[in-house]
Amino acid sequence: MTERADGRALDQLRDVRFTRGWLSQAEGSVLVEFGETRVLVAASVTEGVPRWRKGSGLGWVTSEYAMLPRATNTRTDRESIKGRVGGRTQEISRLIGRSLRAVIDYKALGENTIVLDCDVLQADGGTRTASITGAYVALADAVSWLRDRRLLAGEPLTGSVAAVSVGIVGGTPMLDLCYTEDSAADTDMNVVMSGGGDFIELQGTAEQAPFDRDTLNALLDLGAAGCATLTELQAAALR
Amino acid sequence: MTERADGRALDQLRDVRFTRGWLSQAEGSVLVEFGETRVLVAASVTEGVPRWRKGSGLGWVTSEYAMLPRATNTRTDRESIKGRVGGRTQEISRLIGRSLRAVIDYKALGENTIVLDCDVLQADGGTRTASITGAYVALADAVSWLRDRRLLAGEPLTGSVAAVSVGIVGGTPMLDLCYTEDSAADTDMNVVMSGGGDFIELQGTAEQAPFDRDTLNALLDLGAAGCATLTELQAAALR
Amino acid sequence: MTERADGRALDQLRDVRFTRGWLSQAEGSVLVEFGETRVLVAASVTEGVPRWRKGSGLGWVTSEYAMLPRATNTRTDRESIKGRVGGRTQEISRLIGRSLRAVIDYKALGENTIVLDCDVLQADGGTRTASITGAYVALADAVSWLRDRRLLAGEPLTGSVAAVSVGIVGGTPMLDLCYTEDSAADTDMNVVMSGGGDFIELQGTAEQAPFDRDTLNALLDLGAAGCATLTELQAAALR
Amino acid sequence: MTERADGRALDQLRDVRFTRGWLSQAEGSVLVEFGETRVLVAASVTEGVPRWRKGSGLGWVTSEYAMLPRATNTRTDRESIKGRVGGRTQEISRLIGRSLRAVIDYKALGENTIVLDCDVLQADGGTRTASITGAYVALADAVSWLRDRRLLAGEPLTGSVAAVSVGIVGGTPMLDLCYTEDSAADTDMNVVMSGGGDFIELQGTAEQAPFDRDTLNALLDLGAAGCATLTELQAAALR
Amino acid sequence: MTERADGRALDQLRDVRFTRGWLSQAEGSVLVEFGETRVLVAASVTEGVPRWRKGSGLGWVTSEYAMLPRATNTRTDRESIKGRVGGRTQEISRLIGRSLRAVIDYKALGENTIVLDCDVLQADGGTRTASITGAYVALADAVSWLRDRRLLAGEPLTGSVAAVSVGIVGGTPMLDLCYTEDSAADTDMNVVMSGGGDFIELQGTAEQAPFDRDTLNALLDLGAAGCATLTELQAAALR
Amino acid sequence: MTERADGRALDQLRDVRFTRGWLSQAEGSVLVEFGETRVLVAASVTEGVPRWRKGSGLGWVTSEYAMLPRATNTRTDRESIKGRVGGRTQEISRLIGRSLRAVIDYKALGENTIVLDCDVLQADGGTRTASITGAYVALADAVSWLRDRRLLAGEPLTGSVAAVSVGIVGGTPMLDLCYTEDSAADTDMNVVMSGGGDFIELQGTAEQAPFDRDTLNALLDLGAAGCATLTELQAAALR
Repeated sequence: MTERADGRALDQLRDVRFTRGWLSQAEGSVLVEFGETRVLVAASVTEGVPRWRKGSGLGWVTSEYAMLPRATNTRTDRESIKGRVGGRTQEISRLIGRSLRAVIDYKALGENTIVLDCDVLQADGGTRTASITGAYVALADAVSWLRDRRLLAGEPLTGSVAAVSVGIVGGTPMLDLCYTEDSAADTDMNVVMSGGGDFIELQGTAEQAPFDRDTLNALLDLGAAGCATLTELQAAALR
Repeated sequence: MTERADGRALDQLRDVRFTRGWLSQAEGSVLVEFGETRVLVAASVTEGVPRWRKGSGLGWVTSEYAMLPRATNTRTDRESIKGRVGGRTQEISRLIGRSLRAVIDYKALGENTIVLDCDVLQADGGTRTASITGAYVALADAVSWLRDRRLLAGEPLTGSVAAVSVGIVGGTPMLDLCYTEDSAADTDMNVVMSGGGDFIELQGTAEQAPFDRDTLNALLDLGAAGCATLTELQAAALR
Repeated sequence: MTERADGRALDQLRDVRFTRGWLSQAEGSVLVEFGETRVLVAASVTEGVPRWRKGSGLGWVTSEYAMLPRATNTRTDRESIKGRVGGRTQEISRLIGRSLRAVIDYKALGENTIVLDCDVLQADGGTRTASITGAYVALADAVSWLRDRRLLAGEPLTGSVAAVSVGIVGGTPMLDLCYTEDSAADTDMNVVMSGGGDFIELQGTAEQAPFDRDTLNALLDLGAAGCATLTELQAAALR
Repeated sequence: MTERADGRALDQLRDVRFTRGWLSQAEGSVLVEFGETRVLVAASVTEGVPRWRKGSGLGWVTSEYAMLPRATNTRTDRESIKGRVGGRTQEISRLIGRSLRAVIDYKALGENTIVLDCDVLQADGGTRTASITGAYVALADAVSWLRDRRLLAGEPLTGSVAAVSVGIVGGTPMLDLCYTEDSAADTDMNVVMSGGGDFIELQGTAEQAPFDRDTLNALLDLGAAGCATLTELQAAALR
Repeated sequence: MTERADGRALDQLRDVRFTRGWLSQAEGSVLVEFGETRVLVAASVTEGVPRWRKGSGLGWVTSEYAMLPRATNTRTDRESIKGRVGGRTQEISRLIGRSLRAVIDYKALGENTIVLDCDVLQADGGTRTASITGAYVALADAVSWLRDRRLLAGEPLTGSVAAVSVGIVGGTPMLDLCYTEDSAADTDMNVVMSGGGDFIELQGTAEQAPFDRDTLNALLDLGAAGCATLTELQAAALR
Repeated sequence: MTERADGRALDQLRDVRFTRGWLSQAEGSVLVEFGETRVLVAASVTEGVPRWRKGSGLGWVTSEYAMLPRATNTRTDRESIKGRVGGRTQEISRLIGRSLRAVIDYKALGENTIVLDCDVLQADGGTRTASITGAYVALADAVSWLRDRRLLAGEPLTGSVAAVSVGIVGGTPMLDLCYTEDSAADTDMNVVMSGGGDFIELQGTAEQAPFDRDTLNALLDLGAAGCATLTELQAAALR
């Protein structure tokens, strides 16, 4: 049986912690931690929507993901100084936004915009899935903030969202890969699921060698179980 | 039973055509067409590899995807003039590069670089999967070009790659969505597979509502069959 | 007597072909070929004009020129990725727009804008003059499209435009230089003329040594004859 | 007598906290808090120096300052997405770097570079002075890291650095302005001092009306006392 | 006693010249010279104010500073070509704008904007203080231009502004440093004062070693005397 | 007979003045004036050539053109702040460089680079032709500077270069158009000639209506005479 670097079982999440209200000025905020991975999520509410959506009566939710230069093991140059946002950053920002929009009823949100800023303070694998999982909590708090001020046209959250990474490392499927596991993975998959257990987004990549249907099924089973646990932890944090 | 706009069966590809050697100067080139979708792929070989890879004895394969401004139904502004490459463009470029690198033996390629430029001349849905499918053909020609000049250290192609889109439209799973089908899809998935029938990349997105495991399986079945047909068409084109 | 690489007479054009309607969605489009030089021109019509022209009752015509990375013998980096449009690209875009505006009656066009995208798919010399010559054909088709929909205030085309390059190679004046001739030219001139035989734009450059008035006159004679032939070919293509 | 918003005395600092080692991978790091202002400072050590300094035997210290988008009361757009770093950001980055270089012996540092990233997680006034004060602590830890690995040519720290803001609010000089005080200030001054009580940098601005020499002296007295206290707190944190 | 390179006394300014009306089209303009340092200042008046200030009844004054590429001893690359404005340029532009706004009554100016362009044609130290000193003269002319056309709501100039650099060179405090003195300075300070003798902006930097309060006082004395002389020269030029 | 705004004859230049050595640090410099048009040209010599030319034994000459923001009648935004150099600026920079390289013997220049910075301080039409005419004078001084230091491999100047604009205004051909004439021109032509009376560059544009061969000949006659006069004035200035 494969031993994991930190002694976890193959189907075991790292310690997951949500610290709500980490920022005093944001309408919603959470410091989410998956082991050593630490992401600060701020949900900013503004009245109104982007120009292309004005007068539609519909709201909007979007996200921006970024990493601090020393979130990583060696320092990375700032994208602000390079003057352009890299492909990886944009790809993850789009994924987070898409994932959360899947549980939003735009009509109930009314013409309000919620921006979810996910800034990785420390990275140890799974920063995009931690961001999605934390962003749901910050989003729920921002929605409560709107509800308290009677600024909603209904209940905009149609469900919850959680996400986790799974992968094949040394031939063995595992849940919630840390950085060293992720670097060594043959196959890497990000699973984004609704609280009801359906798929919102699925991204699998053969890093080393193509994978067959059985392997895919094993990864999907692990991911589904991990998302179910995260859904419970989110609910507990939001109580 | 659902009727498709162009009368195709649910599991039927559009007309797929490969015109090899469309460019006279490139080491490999193909004009690939999936119905009205037309992508010009050029494979450019250069001796040497990027700086971070020098002296490793290993080759490199990368890709850049772009659309002409009037490939689409209404004109889109040029990214060169906006001064930045959009998130969608970067995401697709990265996907194409990753997909083709999955069938490359870097050592056999030697310190050579192959760049695959996929320029969409006309877009009618499925431009990224058409790009991948066409890029394999151009890549194979570029590898032949190297082989003819005895510039290889072995056989760099470990397999073939084909890709197709599948989706749920009006509740029905379908293969190879054209633009109008794609716009109306509840769920959209891109399936990239090896000639041997294994998965290289899998990207599924719930555009309207989360989807369950059975739906996922139906889509995977369609995608696998479509890729198998494309693999045969590629082989025929390369003969 | 000087022999040309491809056996042409000194005052002979390369094979010139216009394939109209190459794109199915553009209001006007043409694949124009001057020998191996191949440019895809799309004419896009939009209602309305740029902000600085609003309410004037006048229309607008503009152009953007670009090259695919592997249009050339060795691959060129994309300007979208460099994040800036080079001087040569901007200079040619401005030249094409200016040349076509010379035959436009803005009042008759009404407050409509036509953008001419000239994308070089393959380059073998004379890409700017091929672009202008092809753009006239696409423009004429876009004007027909507007006429058919009764969106014009009159007849906006006051004439036709054709362009060709001429140069002194090895001391001999020649018409329609291909890339190898262009690279070896002492003097290079682009001649843009109206269908009526007047000058619209004239750009001559002493690449190696200053040239005298007699040489200039010889080049102008060649250019005028070439443009006259192109005018006939355009008319034939548009019938 | 003027009452301050938070009940502090006019010459009283806010609660100042240093949490060393907030990041597990950086050679030095500190979360520094001045009341609600929270800055995460990471000190990154790399072997070698910028090109213009190579072979000199001298080290280099530099800094980059930035704010998370929701550090402020309303969300600010990211500079990475705007594609350019604003004047205020660059000005503060330069100030921090200059201030810390004032206590560095480049020769003793050897050809090593230390980059101090100061990222404001939450802003409530005085972010630049909190950054400098915290950066000294992170710098000291990074120097210890180098010392422990015997990578120094001597003792590079020739002293300590602390900084604080002072200002005239409603006619009254005060120490360590929070955001609401800063916004209302007639005059605003940033005082950067060495542990020995000398000036390293002094920046005073008449926001509303020019100020006279007596006012300047009152502000300098307050700033000197504040820096002296901060120097003690830094020493305590580093023990 | 220290001898200065050009024989000046320690408290002596270089030759200062103001050539008003150097540009024929600008509402105010001056070529200001401090010895070999030559700055062309243009004051441009436009009706209206930036968007964020519209309808307030208040005017606006701002500044942009730049250097010609060969203003310096060796050629510097253009910021337009690098595609980004450097930190130093932005910092100085902000300083000049802030300094002049200190003597503007926005209400009396009415909803007019004055932009002060300070372009350094030749640099020999003190370009930012020469810019401020010259900009006041151009500003006064632009205000006269507005007054002559009865476009003011009152008298917008509440005072005059002059600026000079002071520093410690070889242990000795000196006024108005030229480039070679500036390069050798231990401490460098820019003093911006109102015509009434109060401070508008103060920026002191310990280039080599921290400086004490007595040194600061000596520098302030020199700077105040220099600004007083410049105020007289400005008044003479404006008569 | 047509009266010109300033009373000049149709074939008369404006007052042309060359002030050599306007900058004390540049290897060559001239303030060139054509009436109210004023361009400061600096010639900067550096040892060595761009990377692509190293080891060839050949020198290089290039140029950059720019306008100060208030050179024009109303203020123009800075290209450094817009973050990109406009098409017009690049086109003119390329024209100036090309024109001067036409009289350079690269081998005689040796591996030295001369950059000609042409900064328009005040614009009243003909800034590009004034720049070329002035740049030749600054270039000649820079070559003398090199000759005095024995840094040349021979005599790099194979001739002189002068340039002037001509145009058809109100049906009448005229020499050296000022801004109001230029704005009203039907046809506009820039003529760049060698001191020997041959063409170096010719750029004619039909601004309003295509022009015939006779008109072209009239313009060429005017331009040739104007360039001959400018050649004499350059020679006088350089004596």
